[in-house]
Amino acid sequence: MLSQTVEYALRAMVCLAQSPDQLTPTPALASKTKVPPNYLAKVLQVLAQAELIEGRRGVGGGYKLSRPAGDISMLDVVNAIDTLKPITSCPLEISEHGSSLCSLHRRIDQAIRLLIEQFEGVTLHDLITEANPSAPLCETNPKVQIRVSGG
Amino acid sequence: MLSQTVEYALRAMVCLAQSPDQLTPTPALASKTKVPPNYLAKVLQVLAQAELIEGRRGVGGGYKLSRPAGDISMLDVVNAIDTLKPITSCPLEISEHGSSLCSLHRRIDQAIRLLIEQFEGVTLHDLITEANPSAPLCETNPKVQIRVSGG
Repeated sequence: MLSQTVEYALRAMVCLAQSPDQLTPTPALASKTKVPPNYLAKVLQVLAQAELIEGRRGVGGGYKLSRPAGDISMLDVVNAIDTLKPITSCPLEISEHGSSLCSLHRRIDQAIRLLIEQFEGVTLHDLITEANPSAPLCETNPKVQIRVSGG
Repeated sequence: MLSQTVEYALRAMVCLAQSPDQLTPTPALASKTKVPPNYLAKVLQVLAQAELIEGRRGVGGGYKLSRPAGDISMLDVVNAIDTLKPITSCPLEISEHGSSLCSLHRRIDQAIRLLIEQFEGVTLHDLITEANPSAPLCETNPKVQIRVSGG
């Protein structure tokens, strides 16, 4: 339902958000996100077309976010892959309905709006700074600090 | 995000729910749902494998629901195509996380649970009996009654 490609794109974007100041080569990104390299290369092209990331080819090349992680929402990433848009008129294009959706498309529209609401308020910055013992992409969270007693 | 195949499957199921007592031939179903016939044939096979519909080949053949429309939820149809399941452990299969999801997968899991909640409580019967001037599949709603004044 949330496509595999969307999941992979989100992993890649979170990974890039974790190293915002450097170009990350595709093989390193593939290894960290556990996405098959060829599949990832295509996902990265789509993300670049959507101007969410920018890349440089060749030795020392790779990708980085094209704007700060706090300015990229999960919805931006989802929409780069599978557009999430409310249904505003009959998808069967019957003019008789106009903007009055039938029961089926009204429910599907409600589901789409729930997803939009869920994803639009969360930025990549939120994801990488959330207090959570499990850091995205399954590393040990570097932000969890060891508490030293006394002192 | 909600795949085209899911949308097509829901259209087909609603169409079959509208004629529960007869076999509907695939060409008639394709015409009413505006789904390309070859694509629809594959969707119907998947729905039959999921035991939501049953069919008979040959002259006079077609498909019908395998149980009453009130016993089939939108979630049943969605799950026949794209399984909607909460995320209960790290999709990257790193044992370190156990059942503690990272921020990314927690948000994706929340989205999946919203969709499950949205779809599990609505049956095909609900969809075809809802008071709504636009009937599913864009016909004029046969259930909208003309009010006669006086009497």
